[in-house]
Amino acid sequence: MSLSVRHILSVNDLTKKDCALILKTAQNMEEISERSVKKVPILRGKTILLCFFEPSTRTRTSFEIAAKRLSADAVNISSVGSSLSKGETLLDTAKNLEAMNPDILVVRHAQSGIPHLLAQAVDCPVINAGDGMHEHPTQALLDLMTILKVKKRIAGLHIAIIGDILHSRVALSNIILLKKMGAKVSLAGPASMIPLGIEQFGVPIFYDIRKVIPSADVIMMLRIQREREADSFFPSLREYSRFFGLNKETMKHAKKDVVILHPGPVNRGVEIAPEIADGEHSLILDQVTNGVAVRMALLYLLCGAKK
Amino acid sequence: MSLSVRHILSVNDLTKKDCALILKTAQNMEEISERSVKKVPILRGKTILLCFFEPSTRTRTSFEIAAKRLSADAVNISSVGSSLSKGETLLDTAKNLEAMNPDILVVRHAQSGIPHLLAQAVDCPVINAGDGMHEHPTQALLDLMTILKVKKRIAGLHIAIIGDILHSRVALSNIILLKKMGAKVSLAGPASMIPLGIEQFGVPIFYDIRKVIPSADVIMMLRIQREREADSFFPSLREYSRFFGLNKETMKHAKKDVVILHPGPVNRGVEIAPEIADGEHSLILDQVTNGVAVRMALLYLLCGAKK
Amino acid sequence: MSLSVRHILSVNDLTKKDCALILKTAQNMEEISERSVKKVPILRGKTILLCFFEPSTRTRTSFEIAAKRLSADAVNISSVGSSLSKGETLLDTAKNLEAMNPDILVVRHAQSGIPHLLAQAVDCPVINAGDGMHEHPTQALLDLMTILKVKKRIAGLHIAIIGDILHSRVALSNIILLKKMGAKVSLAGPASMIPLGIEQFGVPIFYDIRKVIPSADVIMMLRIQREREADSFFPSLREYSRFFGLNKETMKHAKKDVVILHPGPVNRGVEIAPEIADGEHSLILDQVTNGVAVRMALLYLLCGAKK
Repeated sequence: MSLSVRHILSVNDLTKKDCALILKTAQNMEEISERSVKKVPILRGKTILLCFFEPSTRTRTSFEIAAKRLSADAVNISSVGSSLSKGETLLDTAKNLEAMNPDILVVRHAQSGIPHLLAQAVDCPVINAGDGMHEHPTQALLDLMTILKVKKRIAGLHIAIIGDILHSRVALSNIILLKKMGAKVSLAGPASMIPLGIEQFGVPIFYDIRKVIPSADVIMMLRIQREREADSFFPSLREYSRFFGLNKETMKHAKKDVVILHPGPVNRGVEIAPEIADGEHSLILDQVTNGVAVRMALLYLLCGAKK
Repeated sequence: MSLSVRHILSVNDLTKKDCALILKTAQNMEEISERSVKKVPILRGKTILLCFFEPSTRTRTSFEIAAKRLSADAVNISSVGSSLSKGETLLDTAKNLEAMNPDILVVRHAQSGIPHLLAQAVDCPVINAGDGMHEHPTQALLDLMTILKVKKRIAGLHIAIIGDILHSRVALSNIILLKKMGAKVSLAGPASMIPLGIEQFGVPIFYDIRKVIPSADVIMMLRIQREREADSFFPSLREYSRFFGLNKETMKHAKKDVVILHPGPVNRGVEIAPEIADGEHSLILDQVTNGVAVRMALLYLLCGAKK
Repeated sequence: MSLSVRHILSVNDLTKKDCALILKTAQNMEEISERSVKKVPILRGKTILLCFFEPSTRTRTSFEIAAKRLSADAVNISSVGSSLSKGETLLDTAKNLEAMNPDILVVRHAQSGIPHLLAQAVDCPVINAGDGMHEHPTQALLDLMTILKVKKRIAGLHIAIIGDILHSRVALSNIILLKKMGAKVSLAGPASMIPLGIEQFGVPIFYDIRKVIPSADVIMMLRIQREREADSFFPSLREYSRFFGLNKETMKHAKKDVVILHPGPVNRGVEIAPEIADGEHSLILDQVTNGVAVRMALLYLLCGAKK
């Protein structure tokens, strides 16, 4: 069995069969990270280039650990002190890296579409580790795995995605992937943060989170990306928190068995109250654990997928 | 045999038996770094996260080399370009890293107490690689090893720690550890750099280094941390050097077999004259070599110490 | 067979026999990077310190990949956040690193002569990965390999090096090495970028590139290093490009089988037109591929060369 795609650029490209294969492989990988000796030799002698042209701790670390647990050689490349600062185009950087015979390029970039562009230019598989406000497919896949492990199904679930939909690549990848897998997805957030035309994805939109919380099986909170000045889209953090934050009050109306996801890093007290982030419904740390497994699965499935 | 502690946070927590075990293990490790093939498989499949939230060359490199020579997977995490800059709390960063199943977190931070805080939050062992002006236990252990290798004992030795006691985490860890092992420890430095109440550790204080040098078996020079503006605590570097620097003149009164330590990086011509730093009494480079061995020992002894 | 040198500091030090050994070893290494499992255990347990005190993507990545494909442990050390910023001298940094028992130091520095200085201070082999405006021997060796693979010989070839000779360490290393191997080397560029006295190397100088292009078997274009303000040496980039850039127009007069090299990163449209950089005569990406092989060869040949 193999994937129908050579790159992981958008969840759009993945068939339901692809998703099933990725999740099944991830479940096998998961167990490796729980062993005393957390290492298998299946990607020995493979070179994985981690090109994080935008700051990242969790995703970069997750990929690096995933690569190393499969015995691959992981090499970090950042834009700080790189040839990009010497006037080289990003395409040339990619072609140059490709000339060193890597097996996979993992790419994060602040601009939307960059991983797609690079995938067209190079022969080796490219994994999009987050591009601008566009997509973050490995996050959506780990979210899928996290929900599935607890709820045992996706089809028929009601999943509410709440907060800054406009700036969120996590939201877009999740909307597409969860709809594909048969979930009912609703969006809620301030009007200024709901992108125009998003309803075309078949997702009802709410401006009052109390309208989606009671029926939600899964609540996916998005972070206010203050480093992108997302907080200029509403009057104050306090007001945002009061109307769109998840807290004890708003959780009163939620289902007993609701689960809460958040892609991290969490702004405690802004989009989510500390007692909810750390509470019994929260799967935030499970997401991180599953992230390593999903990335191990993807690295494994793509290695050897060269043209 | 195993350590009585799960974390290395403060030398305070270590029993004399712990110290003996660490030093004995370090002596065995030392030999590995002298081989042609400097690698043993004992930590294969272990994940060591090196979280240096404060600049470091020697300590970070020492830990990374130590991890790799034991075949562990070392992953570097710095605060530059990290989720900390996105508003995440340090505790959340630590919990997230823990969710990726590391075996040890090595933590350096500019604020005192951070490694203790993280150790309470996470399940895996934490090693304090230097926290603010508080402690630097692995430095004290490597200093202990360095003295012991040359002097064959600690008990009964007179050890003079000279310079900026106030800002020095190296000084505090050494005072506690060396006293515990039976040494007589004296402090000397300008009055502005002797912390209030330090005499409670049972260490006599001198404001004239000529009073401690003649009877010292070991002289431990501290660095003037100009990057922390330590040079605002005295009138000028020249004056500091004249009164508290170790040079040919002051060394005239020292014992013939005195040994000199310095945690590095050295400010040549400030706290120590070049001819003394490079002279026959200096053990500065031995300290660095022993540092790798001590860290190999600690990584080995703590791995598998999970609850 | 072994090299006549313990360090790779300048191509000046290399005998013709050394070059032949390096290139022959590199040819064997090349094949490793084309395998499915790109890894051999020949440097297992060796520690390679990559000390890049000046920004670099391609060279650092090339060395790191080279080290890892030979199973060596590669440790990155940069000047950002290092003890250099704490006032330590570079010599002390080097002596400290040496005390951790590395097998090779790879050094890049913005100042000319630093690798030579460090090689005198430390016992382990040092590889110059580019020092200021002085030399870049591994680049010259990979250029040699690239030419040889296509032209099957060096002696008797006419090689034109074009552009900013003044600031280019690539030019100097290539002039010396190519002349040593019997090539005829010509230089061309604006008068302001031809260093005084360079003709002593036995290289004719031209201020009009059309005078060298027709007879050149190899054209080596140099980059305008705008990050070093090299563009203040001529009136405008447009004028530079018009008179000294390689484009369709100037290529009309070139030999049919001419090959084009460029050390990268390329300033497209400045020293070379995009259609030429990507064209059939260009060996720019072959240079990158050969770079990994040459560095694997050097790491292999120098490991174990300790005094």
